[in-house]
Amino acid sequence: MADRPPAVVLLSGGVDSAVALAIAHHEGFACHCLSVDYGQRHRAELDAAGKVAASLGAAEHRVLRIDLGALGGSALTDPAIPVPEMPSRGIPVTYVPARNTVLLSLALAWAEVLGAADLFIGANAVDYSGYPDCRPEYLHAFEEMANLSTKAAIEGRRLTLHRPLVYLTKSEIIRRGSDLGVAFNITVSCYQATGDGRACGRCDACRLRRLGFEAARIPDPTRYGV
Amino acid sequence: MADRPPAVVLLSGGVDSAVALAIAHHEGFACHCLSVDYGQRHRAELDAAGKVAASLGAAEHRVLRIDLGALGGSALTDPAIPVPEMPSRGIPVTYVPARNTVLLSLALAWAEVLGAADLFIGANAVDYSGYPDCRPEYLHAFEEMANLSTKAAIEGRRLTLHRPLVYLTKSEIIRRGSDLGVAFNITVSCYQATGDGRACGRCDACRLRRLGFEAARIPDPTRYGV
Repeated sequence: MADRPPAVVLLSGGVDSAVALAIAHHEGFACHCLSVDYGQRHRAELDAAGKVAASLGAAEHRVLRIDLGALGGSALTDPAIPVPEMPSRGIPVTYVPARNTVLLSLALAWAEVLGAADLFIGANAVDYSGYPDCRPEYLHAFEEMANLSTKAAIEGRRLTLHRPLVYLTKSEIIRRGSDLGVAFNITVSCYQATGDGRACGRCDACRLRRLGFEAARIPDPTRYGV
Repeated sequence: MADRPPAVVLLSGGVDSAVALAIAHHEGFACHCLSVDYGQRHRAELDAAGKVAASLGAAEHRVLRIDLGALGGSALTDPAIPVPEMPSRGIPVTYVPARNTVLLSLALAWAEVLGAADLFIGANAVDYSGYPDCRPEYLHAFEEMANLSTKAAIEGRRLTLHRPLVYLTKSEIIRRGSDLGVAFNITVSCYQATGDGRACGRCDACRLRRLGFEAARIPDPTRYGV
């Protein structure tokens, strides 16, 4: 691993970020994986993230805690707001205000400490839930901002925000991950996952994941049953 | 306060953010003040922030915890790196990687939950320590990114990042705050402040503050003695 340049990879424990990690590793980076315990109800994804990092040869995996639930405003952090089990119009209540901006900011901070010029995020704007902070124009603006924000940037070391999945369909993401040896059975996508990672099969995250495996013609290893 | 539109104000407990809060209040906003306990060594500033918020009629003051010290890389969060007591060349070791990006991201999240279209930051690019994330071009880029990142932005409610101090000298900031009734005696700037808020008088933050009061010809109420 000694000659691999460092990259920070945001890792949620779901399908997309696992594939982003597999791609980063495949491209030759030493992957420093960051998960954030932001008060999400599906905490099983944090355990999954640790397993995914280990299984894909990550250099390191850290979990930072920040209680976004204290600010409220999302079904993912507020137990009083139910997770919808039908696709909704507009931006769903599972949207966590400014989540990707907070996650990317923390990844940026760590990248600067590590001297890493590369960040990876598994954001996707095709088979997604309509979250504003998954869109290509947002990710581009974050990269521009990041390149004005840091000591490294001032000193001329440009930072790249890799978003390798942004234009792929879910089935393309799953096929790419399968080719790279991602063990999807250890990933957790469900917003209502049980402590041991079983999925409800009904929320938007489950729906997108299930349709992705079907379209990719790859057996769905998800353990259902909430 | 009922007719005042909400704004989120980043409040450190030092001179600049106190004046930014006074300006936001003076401009008619209901000020929701956010401080972040990020593992800084000068934790007295968090107590000071609470007092400043109360004294300037803030609607609310919240402290969010996130351990940036776990990522390392700064004299402000790593007890093993001493705070310099002489001005340094380049960006000093008191720079906290991506700090303002993290703080602004959290402010953005809260603004979205509150339905606030206004953020205030007391960043200053004249009498400052050379931190990259205090520069006007960085703050502009953050505002652009923020306006692509949120549900509110997608729905057409533009967010404004107010940075009323960015082009002022420290003495102009202090005079403006004095005119608006800021009680500077309860603010804490020192990077090495004692638990009860006494200042070392030697670090860069103390130096900029002392020179500011001198140039403004306003008595310096700082309690020195570390």
